[in-house]
Amino acid sequence: MGSNSWRLVVYGHEPGSWWALTDEIREATRVGEHMGEERTLKPEPMDRALHTAAVFASFCRAAGVDRVDAVATSAIRAAVNRDELLDAIRERTGLRVRVISGREEGWYGYLALANSTTLRDGFGIETGGGSVQLMRLEDRRLAASESLQLGSVTMSETFLPGEKAPAKAMRALRGHVAREMGELGWWEGGGRLTGIGGTIRNLATAAAKRLEFPDVDVQGFELTRTALGELIELLASKPASKRGAVPGIKPDRADVILGGALVLDACMDAGGFDVLEVSEAGLREGVFFESRLGDPPLVADVRRASVENLAHRYGSGGRHELHVAHLSLQLYDGLAEAGLHEPDGSDRELLEAACMLHDIGMTIDYDDHHRHSHYLILHAGLPGFTPRELVLIGLVARYHRKGDPDASELGDLALPGDAERLRLLCGVIRLAEQLERSRDQSVASVGVRPANGAVRLDPDASGDPTVAIWAARRNAGLLAEAIGRPVEVVG
Amino acid sequence: MGSNSWRLVVYGHEPGSWWALTDEIREATRVGEHMGEERTLKPEPMDRALHTAAVFASFCRAAGVDRVDAVATSAIRAAVNRDELLDAIRERTGLRVRVISGREEGWYGYLALANSTTLRDGFGIETGGGSVQLMRLEDRRLAASESLQLGSVTMSETFLPGEKAPAKAMRALRGHVAREMGELGWWEGGGRLTGIGGTIRNLATAAAKRLEFPDVDVQGFELTRTALGELIELLASKPASKRGAVPGIKPDRADVILGGALVLDACMDAGGFDVLEVSEAGLREGVFFESRLGDPPLVADVRRASVENLAHRYGSGGRHELHVAHLSLQLYDGLAEAGLHEPDGSDRELLEAACMLHDIGMTIDYDDHHRHSHYLILHAGLPGFTPRELVLIGLVARYHRKGDPDASELGDLALPGDAERLRLLCGVIRLAEQLERSRDQSVASVGVRPANGAVRLDPDASGDPTVAIWAARRNAGLLAEAIGRPVEVVG
Repeated sequence: MGSNSWRLVVYGHEPGSWWALTDEIREATRVGEHMGEERTLKPEPMDRALHTAAVFASFCRAAGVDRVDAVATSAIRAAVNRDELLDAIRERTGLRVRVISGREEGWYGYLALANSTTLRDGFGIETGGGSVQLMRLEDRRLAASESLQLGSVTMSETFLPGEKAPAKAMRALRGHVAREMGELGWWEGGGRLTGIGGTIRNLATAAAKRLEFPDVDVQGFELTRTALGELIELLASKPASKRGAVPGIKPDRADVILGGALVLDACMDAGGFDVLEVSEAGLREGVFFESRLGDPPLVADVRRASVENLAHRYGSGGRHELHVAHLSLQLYDGLAEAGLHEPDGSDRELLEAACMLHDIGMTIDYDDHHRHSHYLILHAGLPGFTPRELVLIGLVARYHRKGDPDASELGDLALPGDAERLRLLCGVIRLAEQLERSRDQSVASVGVRPANGAVRLDPDASGDPTVAIWAARRNAGLLAEAIGRPVEVVG
Repeated sequence: MGSNSWRLVVYGHEPGSWWALTDEIREATRVGEHMGEERTLKPEPMDRALHTAAVFASFCRAAGVDRVDAVATSAIRAAVNRDELLDAIRERTGLRVRVISGREEGWYGYLALANSTTLRDGFGIETGGGSVQLMRLEDRRLAASESLQLGSVTMSETFLPGEKAPAKAMRALRGHVAREMGELGWWEGGGRLTGIGGTIRNLATAAAKRLEFPDVDVQGFELTRTALGELIELLASKPASKRGAVPGIKPDRADVILGGALVLDACMDAGGFDVLEVSEAGLREGVFFESRLGDPPLVADVRRASVENLAHRYGSGGRHELHVAHLSLQLYDGLAEAGLHEPDGSDRELLEAACMLHDIGMTIDYDDHHRHSHYLILHAGLPGFTPRELVLIGLVARYHRKGDPDASELGDLALPGDAERLRLLCGVIRLAEQLERSRDQSVASVGVRPANGAVRLDPDASGDPTVAIWAARRNAGLLAEAIGRPVEVVG
């Protein structure tokens, strides 16, 4: 129950296997509208809030949700008459709302960041409607946090109340933020900065839409200050009511997005940060993680957990997938030892992830399941991986059976050598998949050795390898092309 | 085990709920190659066939398939030395191959057609590598069938053995087919013609690729003789080895596709047919249907069965979907009674199908599930519906929650009035979905009545309608636009 929007988020959870968001409704309640200096919730916003609470409570009852956490943040926390609203909500809906402190808000934001990014040491920021949470992480622990009343609704109402955004008003807003930040003492020195919250998601989406960017979410997107500056300029050039037409910006944020962008930019400036890594997780995931993970509520390895969560959710990631990963890594390492490619730890990790996920598309259909796996990976996303890495994993899964690997989907995320990289990884997974075509681990392992200008692959069979050898021989072409020499399958 | 290609097809089946193809391997075995007049299987094709049988048998063992039907058709049926191959297969793999008669081949083809199209009275054709099956249906029963040795491999070897396709040779092929057909006596008079088999699928795919055609399979595609004639001209203009480069044609059919196309064209000519309705089902589905359906092995209503099969496969089509269908049809009929649109039985059926399928995308993810439903519907297909109908069902599901309906995906399948049609159907399902937003059937039914230039919708609640009314009021805009007047939700 934020100052700007309220969300009801329903999670499904199969303990030890997977979790996923299963339903969601959102209302731009604006409960903090016109609170002003006297910090009172006004009658109209309270009416809207009460009605929204009734809808949410009714939804939870109808959907049979088995545990409800109702959490309110900044605007309600700050309001002198908050009990009036909370009592009315309890009376009408039975919902007992927990008003969390700025410190707790920082804690949930930290849990969201620490479980959806690879950040160990660095900073986090959450820009909300009422307040901004700032965090510092040391060795994945929350070392410092602070909540400041610099939210986008508050700042916009104070400094940018009209349709236009005069340069002077924007400077005043920045100055105000800079002064508040200056008092912190620990928000400085640059380094890695991560961010969450609707304002940041919207700004990152808008920045991505100005690039040739693949059709994936902004999880892991790197928002540079340069790109943020360009967006601010674009937004400021339009009247407030038209800012929602900028691609990526939600129309119901039109009037507060510029204020939020200026706050973020001033915060980055104050800390000496050039770039912000975006996470789509938020307070709601933090609350979920706290209730479902151990103590401390941290997954051990975010990237691995993302891959396993996605695989398990689609009934995949079992013996077949683990075995394809095993054979793929044997091939990858064996070819590197034979001097046939330059091994790369990051590529190796992407290959392993793609192996774990290559068959999730079977949940849709056998026909074209490689395409479905690609679709599911790109859609679902993999927190902890960058968009570039996500797209590469998707492409390796996409081409694990057939087709000519095509890296063009990377768009502006492409790097030199990607065509070769993709061909090698796809050539490897394709052979591993065929050596495990009968899905019974009949080829226990595979040896790699150079032989007269060719490469000889020697399957070590623990069962009947008829299908494996037949299938591998028919699918060695891509790997041969990738390493520039014939591939022979001994059998 | 056909004359041209062998396929291993694995079906999953949840009796009374759904069935689906779950795995498939295919080999262009060409067992009938160079059989010639003396009708003997030659050593090389026999070796290939034996090896393929070993691979298939090994695959079945590894995959734990619980029932195997090994069925051989024309080339093996006709071969004087077939027992030599069948004994070798049994000895090496344990597979007992059932060689079916031309009559049985027609029967399985009939089952495939009768369970994947809406044909009641008309004709069917299957073009294989060795033979062509012709069928006549009366009231969905198989009234006549005949198997003729006019398969694409045989005809190509006899009349078009070289790289080129001389006009004279093509005329001779046509003449031969026409003479054989002329003796039948019952292949005449035009009417509805349906077709199955790899040759027909490839030709239909090639014809579709020459149109602005949506990204769906050719199930239900109407292949006209004009389009077929253009394809024949295109194929004949290329050397045999290059015909596989024509988009839609499988490369391993390159040398026999022209022969197959000429046979088909001559058969259509002989029967006076202008158009062929394509089905993707085949002999393999016929065998499956016989073993899994009752007696006669016919589903009662192909279109309904297709919708239910797809819904059940993704755990959908339950109380919520049935209720959205119920409310949608109440709205559709109520608006028609109020004179606000011209009702159309076909549109009404598409609306109902879309309601049953609108949430299947939830199997992928809650986020964007309307898009996933669209993706799944278009990919999986709905036998019994035309490609145009399939795309419309997919679009109604796509826009059941949000977005501005866009009919452009129909491409060359579009008809005048489609934009209005789509807006109305999407407006209706969107309101019905919101009236059932809490998924608990709390709005039992909905009344429609005109009121002062507006339309008033009156939900009859059997439970708590808070969510329904809140949600419906926020989503009535599209329907209002479709009928050109305001929509009020009474609450």
